[in-house]
Amino acid sequence: MSVPDITRHFEFEPVGRRLEDLETPVPVIDIDVVANNLARWQARCDKAGFGNRPHIKTHKMVPLARAQLALGARGITVQKLGEAEVMADAGITDMLLTFNILGDQKLQRLAALARRTGIKVVADNDVVVEGLGRAGQAAGRDIDVLVECDTGMKRNGVQSPEAAAALARCIAATKGLRYGGLMTYPKPGVRREAAAYIAEARGLIAKAGLETPVISTGGAPEMWSDEGLEDITEYRTGTYVFFDRSLVNRGVCAREDCGLTMLATVVSRPTPERAMIDAGTKSLTSDLLGLQGYGIIPEYGDAKIYEANEEHGYVDLSDSTAKPSVGDRVRILPNHVCPVVNLFDRVVFIRGDEVLGRVRVDARGLVQ
Amino acid sequence: MSVPDITRHFEFEPVGRRLEDLETPVPVIDIDVVANNLARWQARCDKAGFGNRPHIKTHKMVPLARAQLALGARGITVQKLGEAEVMADAGITDMLLTFNILGDQKLQRLAALARRTGIKVVADNDVVVEGLGRAGQAAGRDIDVLVECDTGMKRNGVQSPEAAAALARCIAATKGLRYGGLMTYPKPGVRREAAAYIAEARGLIAKAGLETPVISTGGAPEMWSDEGLEDITEYRTGTYVFFDRSLVNRGVCAREDCGLTMLATVVSRPTPERAMIDAGTKSLTSDLLGLQGYGIIPEYGDAKIYEANEEHGYVDLSDSTAKPSVGDRVRILPNHVCPVVNLFDRVVFIRGDEVLGRVRVDARGLVQ
Repeated sequence: MSVPDITRHFEFEPVGRRLEDLETPVPVIDIDVVANNLARWQARCDKAGFGNRPHIKTHKMVPLARAQLALGARGITVQKLGEAEVMADAGITDMLLTFNILGDQKLQRLAALARRTGIKVVADNDVVVEGLGRAGQAAGRDIDVLVECDTGMKRNGVQSPEAAAALARCIAATKGLRYGGLMTYPKPGVRREAAAYIAEARGLIAKAGLETPVISTGGAPEMWSDEGLEDITEYRTGTYVFFDRSLVNRGVCAREDCGLTMLATVVSRPTPERAMIDAGTKSLTSDLLGLQGYGIIPEYGDAKIYEANEEHGYVDLSDSTAKPSVGDRVRILPNHVCPVVNLFDRVVFIRGDEVLGRVRVDARGLVQ
Repeated sequence: MSVPDITRHFEFEPVGRRLEDLETPVPVIDIDVVANNLARWQARCDKAGFGNRPHIKTHKMVPLARAQLALGARGITVQKLGEAEVMADAGITDMLLTFNILGDQKLQRLAALARRTGIKVVADNDVVVEGLGRAGQAAGRDIDVLVECDTGMKRNGVQSPEAAAALARCIAATKGLRYGGLMTYPKPGVRREAAAYIAEARGLIAKAGLETPVISTGGAPEMWSDEGLEDITEYRTGTYVFFDRSLVNRGVCAREDCGLTMLATVVSRPTPERAMIDAGTKSLTSDLLGLQGYGIIPEYGDAKIYEANEEHGYVDLSDSTAKPSVGDRVRILPNHVCPVVNLFDRVVFIRGDEVLGRVRVDARGLVQ
């Protein structure tokens, strides 16, 4: 498969031409790796016959959302109103917000979004449904609401197919709303059970005379597996745009599919075995996801960042043959890429060793 | 001690009058608790006879830096150039940047800062010293450089008093620089050993004919202890402005000294024992600091956030007598407050239950 050129979606701010010109720490994103990830996942969805609804919480960037849509995504997924508003301002209208919305201010913002976009939302309880109904009425159009089902994740979601059916009926009976389907984030490893739950819920809902137009599932860890996907209409995944160390470790992607690395500088070499770098938890986060350390440096034999303070990363060089000197740049593969992007106002796009420019992380830090 | 009024340093953006008017998740900061923390620590420094040089990396807000200085702080500590630039723009000139600065772009920014402020910096190796010298020459004035000493933290810092003395001589011999003193961040529990290391380094440096004008130490965990502080000239601590769960746990402060809580909304009650809230790792971070869970909710019997995803917090209500309903607001005591503030463009100040307004986190997310 040829790698599509997605640069046309970007306006790059100039920031130098080579990696050495960049100030650190800064996330650098290889645009061709990303484009390849987007195209490969879109092809997989097309072939499997379900819609691709990428979760933009990973990248939070308008140009990447546009690239995803241009390559064939059905719409996007957002996790909060701030993200939805930024994407709506960019002219994106097909959005699913996968989080219960509550509170007068937020419901007013939802109503405003519903007036100018086709935003769909989810609910897992009747307090939320009641509020959403007010938003739909304020918007002057019925908002589609999907029932979020807890199929094993033990997070949000109704607890049984019966409860899903009851909530679907409640949505359908609420002025300002339309029953929009079923949504779940299945726990990795139980997708077949999740599918059985969803099928049962859909059957009960059909008995109540309601059609289920959308069955939305998601998750990066099992994105390539077909198990339990027979009935779904769309798939949500976010991390596939960049991938990360945790997904390499789970076998979801190869090292070379990882599109984002943290460029950092070695600021100190206090001992032969220790390098200190300028990337700590305020760049890499403390997310471990079951891994050892806060990230690795592939070019130095996977040297591990074994400890991290806010602006300090502690690198263990004992297993590295070549060892970096003070002032050298290193590129870190972060454990979990989503919260990393969320820490930066701007990131840098590259193509191989060439710097393309700086790009705003449009939807980060916004109020809720 | 009476609580000083620090509101005059702030310009609040209106955001409603009561906590119920706020959208969640959002950090809310009680201004009187903060003012009390600032005054109490300043009084302790005054009484002990050393300077107070608060680390603004915790709050990153100009008005709080101004309040700290107005109450008697000698100057401020910053961890990166972006923070220093924001504080310089606000007219603050006495700053210590406690991190090795490397790279042409950063050294140019340092030179620009040195032209308009009295910024001091640190170094722990000669590569850094060489670069700082170029910055001092470009600035047209000698920059004070403190030698960072690794007195047990095993992070940055020269590894012995002899190495400290050698680097002090190197600084003194470098055009554009002046030897500015000794700086350390002692590992909690070994401050006496740290003091012995520093005394020895100072002795060796004196033998080389150099005076040590500043001995700077720091750290919140042992801020109230006098051990090993006989010779210091100034103390750096950041977290004392807000305190947090980790410092309550270490006995550094009381619950009621904690000035920042995360206001969140209960969005789902899937089971009798579980509440789901809208604060996850993108508001609370994944910092555990040895604690169980991602924060606690004092008003519900210290209910623990036992798991967190990016925008989901999982609350265990099994030990809570009263249990919140969907739509209820809760206030979370976060584990580690510094990286929490760093996640938000704006935070809200309150006085008891009264909302004062929204304030920009001036120095967050800035390039390096």
